[in-house]
Amino acid sequence: MDNPFIGRDVISILDFSRKDLEQLFRVSREMERFRKSRIDVLRDKIIALAFFEPSTRTRLSFETAAKRLGANVIGFSAAEATSVAKGENLADTIRMLDSYADLIVIRHRFEGAAKFAAEVASNPVINAGDGKQHHPTQAMLDLYTILKLFGRIDGLTYAVVGDLRYGRAATSFIYGLTLFEPRKIFLVSPPLLRARTEVLEHLRRRGVPFEEVDSVESIIEEIDVMYVTRIQRERFPDPMEYEKVRGAYRITLELLEKGKDSLKVLHPLPKVDEIDHRVDSSKYAAYFEQAANGVPVRMALLALILGADLESMGVRL
Amino acid sequence: MDNPFIGRDVISILDFSRKDLEQLFRVSREMERFRKSRIDVLRDKIIALAFFEPSTRTRLSFETAAKRLGANVIGFSAAEATSVAKGENLADTIRMLDSYADLIVIRHRFEGAAKFAAEVASNPVINAGDGKQHHPTQAMLDLYTILKLFGRIDGLTYAVVGDLRYGRAATSFIYGLTLFEPRKIFLVSPPLLRARTEVLEHLRRRGVPFEEVDSVESIIEEIDVMYVTRIQRERFPDPMEYEKVRGAYRITLELLEKGKDSLKVLHPLPKVDEIDHRVDSSKYAAYFEQAANGVPVRMALLALILGADLESMGVRL
Amino acid sequence: MDNPFIGRDVISILDFSRKDLEQLFRVSREMERFRKSRIDVLRDKIIALAFFEPSTRTRLSFETAAKRLGANVIGFSAAEATSVAKGENLADTIRMLDSYADLIVIRHRFEGAAKFAAEVASNPVINAGDGKQHHPTQAMLDLYTILKLFGRIDGLTYAVVGDLRYGRAATSFIYGLTLFEPRKIFLVSPPLLRARTEVLEHLRRRGVPFEEVDSVESIIEEIDVMYVTRIQRERFPDPMEYEKVRGAYRITLELLEKGKDSLKVLHPLPKVDEIDHRVDSSKYAAYFEQAANGVPVRMALLALILGADLESMGVRL
Repeated sequence: MDNPFIGRDVISILDFSRKDLEQLFRVSREMERFRKSRIDVLRDKIIALAFFEPSTRTRLSFETAAKRLGANVIGFSAAEATSVAKGENLADTIRMLDSYADLIVIRHRFEGAAKFAAEVASNPVINAGDGKQHHPTQAMLDLYTILKLFGRIDGLTYAVVGDLRYGRAATSFIYGLTLFEPRKIFLVSPPLLRARTEVLEHLRRRGVPFEEVDSVESIIEEIDVMYVTRIQRERFPDPMEYEKVRGAYRITLELLEKGKDSLKVLHPLPKVDEIDHRVDSSKYAAYFEQAANGVPVRMALLALILGADLESMGVRL
Repeated sequence: MDNPFIGRDVISILDFSRKDLEQLFRVSREMERFRKSRIDVLRDKIIALAFFEPSTRTRLSFETAAKRLGANVIGFSAAEATSVAKGENLADTIRMLDSYADLIVIRHRFEGAAKFAAEVASNPVINAGDGKQHHPTQAMLDLYTILKLFGRIDGLTYAVVGDLRYGRAATSFIYGLTLFEPRKIFLVSPPLLRARTEVLEHLRRRGVPFEEVDSVESIIEEIDVMYVTRIQRERFPDPMEYEKVRGAYRITLELLEKGKDSLKVLHPLPKVDEIDHRVDSSKYAAYFEQAANGVPVRMALLALILGADLESMGVRL
Repeated sequence: MDNPFIGRDVISILDFSRKDLEQLFRVSREMERFRKSRIDVLRDKIIALAFFEPSTRTRLSFETAAKRLGANVIGFSAAEATSVAKGENLADTIRMLDSYADLIVIRHRFEGAAKFAAEVASNPVINAGDGKQHHPTQAMLDLYTILKLFGRIDGLTYAVVGDLRYGRAATSFIYGLTLFEPRKIFLVSPPLLRARTEVLEHLRRRGVPFEEVDSVESIIEEIDVMYVTRIQRERFPDPMEYEKVRGAYRITLELLEKGKDSLKVLHPLPKVDEIDHRVDSSKYAAYFEQAANGVPVRMALLALILGADLESMGVRL
């Protein structure tokens, strides 16, 4: 089979078709075999990790994926990025990494930073989160997790809970769902943190049934997947308002027990206290498995983009 | 021979028997052959270094050991840990690393952090220093250094000098000695920094002869090994008190010349000014060799825990 | 051919002869073949990067070079160096790295730090920039870039522009030129940032024609290579003075168009605003290629110093 990923940038989950993602998930599934070993299909490659914003989880997940494939990794984390930032423009930093490495993974707080980097770089660029909307590899591993859990992404009812306005993981997940055929998506957030107009419009355009609601309680019996995200204190001008909202969107075991038996809770992590710790060890918690799935999905993505000879490892493309 | 280390956590030096350590030291001795080369016995493994507290020496020593064995390394240093710490609980961070890597090395300021991590993780956890008492791999390399210098650990007279109250290296070293048969241990510290009651009780229980003294001068002629640790200014409410103590516990060449010809000075490093610089190039100084021994000892430990096929490299277990 | 680099320290560009550099450039040229792949000629080696001062570009360039040669890398960047610095003296830090690694690359703000490190270490030490004068590997890649662009270093007319007093890249470049036979060097800087007396004396002693001038405009028609460096605000007690100077030394496309058609602009990077962005995509800009050349030159240098078996890879020494 051919490989539509080769040499490609990954800026938004919407750059991909359902068929692309299905192939990615198929290869991801095969990568699980090598998750705790090493295959040297990328031994000639150097992956640059340009993390201008802190993110231990995503950074180490990419680094693990690269190293399991035999690639070398260079780069910087946010703590080191200050020296990069000191006056040098992003284009020059990207040009430097582009001349050293074979692929650049970038994380940046500014909307569009990854797209800009992709325009400057001659090598492929993967967006590891920029601005408020795009974190495509997170959406990929989220969808892959659901596929593994339920055997399908279509036909399920979803609740996306928390900060739908500034949270890029939530928005990317919603965008990702629109490539499939969800039964319905409930958008559950406090009024201040509602999904952006462009997201709602995209849902309408794609004909995805959705509904904005204020509380998880009201829809708990209907949903198959609850995707929870953190609500950050900084979003609220009034601390009292934050405290109220936080309480109302806290996911407890009692709440989950009102839902379906097969209900699964996802979370892009790190979580703080938005999910009751007792949930962690319950049948509902899928977020640790979800985080772990980041490695095989990113292994598949890196291998496909860089044209690794997976077939010689017995992996079907 | 069998390998009692396989799959094991390393939380305290007291988790190990004398026989365990003797095997570790035997393998460490064989690892010296590969200290400046590379053997690929761990090429399928990823070691996660979770350094929540700064420690360049221990971190790079583990990293060197892992890489000399062909393993890959991921992780974070204290400068990067701030982003991890931001609200995420330790359990979630450990779960993440556990799903990426095959073994976790953790350094943390809180007592019990390593034990907690070992309970959460399914992969082995090595304590690279937590709280005020435990730094087992430091004790291992300390004892290994003495074995190399004197051909034995038993029957020697030791002075442990400096901060015996808050210094985890000193306490771990004392615990380590109790697994052998030292002739006597002098505990030399200012009154404020005396060894904790539980340490003294442990010494009594194990029947190890010891004596608490205030000055090195008084016992200099009796000892074979002087283990010096740093006294930190922060421990003293009164700066004048600190200055007095610091002077009294400074190790000079003149002092050492009053001792045995074969006297050796150890120090876990980094040192500041507690040892006169002229000692560095004297026959007494064993601390640089001691630091260098960290690599073969940690190579042996990682290889044994992860069940590396050392025998195929001609290494006797 | 024999290898005069083997086991050698790299402290100043003046430690090398023209013949040494010509060999280095020949091997660098061959390394270009492996710039985007990997050869395992240093698979048994660990390179320590001791970056006490921030420098993402130089650090990642060395790291890339080492990894393309199959070596492992350990070390710390400036963000992590604070914990190293805390009281520990430089000699002890270097001794530690020397016992772990096979070669040390050091960057430090103090003049002479690299030389001192080389005296302490038994393994080779490469100066990646210390103090205000020496950054020998930068000079190597600068000269290599000119050789690639013009086919020769001799007989060209150079302008070195900007901070000639505190900028170590500029000074190292001037020193490097004195190993060849430039037609003339213009030293272009504001009065406060003139080249040091020792640099001028060295130029005279080597019989290199040079002239100090205040403005680029006056000499633009004569030069083949313009080496631009940043002028830092901190150098000026009076901010007004800085603003004036900055404007006068800004390189615009209009200025360059008054020069030769073949004129090339070099810059050690990172640059801030001393070069008009429109220059970036013009025929004059050689600085991105120059930065990229850091990898093959550092590959050649590491391989030669560590005595890699390059000939087995078909590389002529």
